[in-house]
Amino acid sequence: MPRYKLTIEYDGTHFNGWQSQADRRAVQDALSAAIEGFCGEKVTVFGAGRTDSGVHALGQVAHIDLEKEAPPDKLRDAVNFHLKPHAVAVLAAEKVGEDFDARFSARRRHYSYRIINRRAPLTVDKDRAWLVHAPLDAGAMHEAGQVLIGKHDFTTFRSAHCQAKSPVKTMDEVSVSRYGEEIEIVCRARSFLHNQVRSIVGSLKQVGEGRWSAADMRRALEAADRAACGPVAPPQGLYLFQVDYE
Amino acid sequence: MPRYKLTIEYDGTHFNGWQSQADRRAVQDALSAAIEGFCGEKVTVFGAGRTDSGVHALGQVAHIDLEKEAPPDKLRDAVNFHLKPHAVAVLAAEKVGEDFDARFSARRRHYSYRIINRRAPLTVDKDRAWLVHAPLDAGAMHEAGQVLIGKHDFTTFRSAHCQAKSPVKTMDEVSVSRYGEEIEIVCRARSFLHNQVRSIVGSLKQVGEGRWSAADMRRALEAADRAACGPVAPPQGLYLFQVDYE
Repeated sequence: MPRYKLTIEYDGTHFNGWQSQADRRAVQDALSAAIEGFCGEKVTVFGAGRTDSGVHALGQVAHIDLEKEAPPDKLRDAVNFHLKPHAVAVLAAEKVGEDFDARFSARRRHYSYRIINRRAPLTVDKDRAWLVHAPLDAGAMHEAGQVLIGKHDFTTFRSAHCQAKSPVKTMDEVSVSRYGEEIEIVCRARSFLHNQVRSIVGSLKQVGEGRWSAADMRRALEAADRAACGPVAPPQGLYLFQVDYE
Repeated sequence: MPRYKLTIEYDGTHFNGWQSQADRRAVQDALSAAIEGFCGEKVTVFGAGRTDSGVHALGQVAHIDLEKEAPPDKLRDAVNFHLKPHAVAVLAAEKVGEDFDARFSARRRHYSYRIINRRAPLTVDKDRAWLVHAPLDAGAMHEAGQVLIGKHDFTTFRSAHCQAKSPVKTMDEVSVSRYGEEIEIVCRARSFLHNQVRSIVGSLKQVGEGRWSAADMRRALEAADRAACGPVAPPQGLYLFQVDYE
């Protein structure tokens, strides 16, 4: 069976997350239905990362197996046609070998988190960023983020519902940059725990507001205790923007 | 009567444009209602630029006169409270002199236009950019845009419904830049004719697709004939992002 790699973008606002649900309101469900609409085959769409309800993707990756071969560009355009009016799009389709697995072959996942730091409510960025009123010190947030780099037990920054066997992950990058009233936080790692980025962002906000120091961030990490985490950041600021393969 | 300058942001998608309408679905109507909700006064909101239905603003400017004085920050926060759930926000409020007029005191207006140049449909940028499938040459578009710089009769790039007395305007800047799959077009001038930016963008797209040369753009300008314009670009890519005053 030919296997295809799909690069996928979606607005997570009106989806019940990535993973297939009984109510069929997940991104996976919209994709399966569109692929069935195109070729009549019921397929499973295997994704690189499960995103929660409200979380967006600019470069989610998935793989599918089809019974019949299809030219990749035709597959992309036809699936996009059948995806309407859902806010999901296949950016690229590519034929890959049977050993390619969107989840297990992934070498690095890249997330970004957008904060708009101002008094006024959001309009064009509503559902696309986290509005934070209190002035944030992005430099202090960046510095505190460096505490997380490397291999650590991330129990503090892990949802109680996380199903990963081990809480140990290796963080390659946590960077915080300010562009005017916008703050962008980028996190890169081979893989992440459930709610890890949102837990880190929520804790970095504590630092940005001056409630926590970088030393407090280190203490929170070393506690390896969910109770030591800052309030988890909301989903609408989070974007899965890239997944790397060998 | 104290006069206030308001800097305003809005998502134009669900509004019937800036200017007050009988159906009360314009941005001006939402602002008047919110100001009345705050202080009980029925005021007219005078804007720097009329935007069409679907056009956004990141820095529209307006002025209002109130019977009673209000601290500017309180005015901003209270109007924002009463604007909910509309996608309009007052970014800043400032007390100004009686000689300040949002429309007539404006020295320069800045518009940007976003094109996403790719095959796949839009998801997170739906209603926030123009999706163009054909590959566009941004360098050629920029070059052709320079033909428009300076004082010209812009009849070609003016809506048939335009109410301005003269079609002569002075264009200070037309710049076209590509950032990956996104093309941004910035136009700056003291004032614009109705549909001028969208008419220019639609014509620049002809250049980007290789249908028009810079010489064709010059001929279109010199024709001073609405029929010589390229197909007008849709509203959702257009943003009024700044208005300058002395």
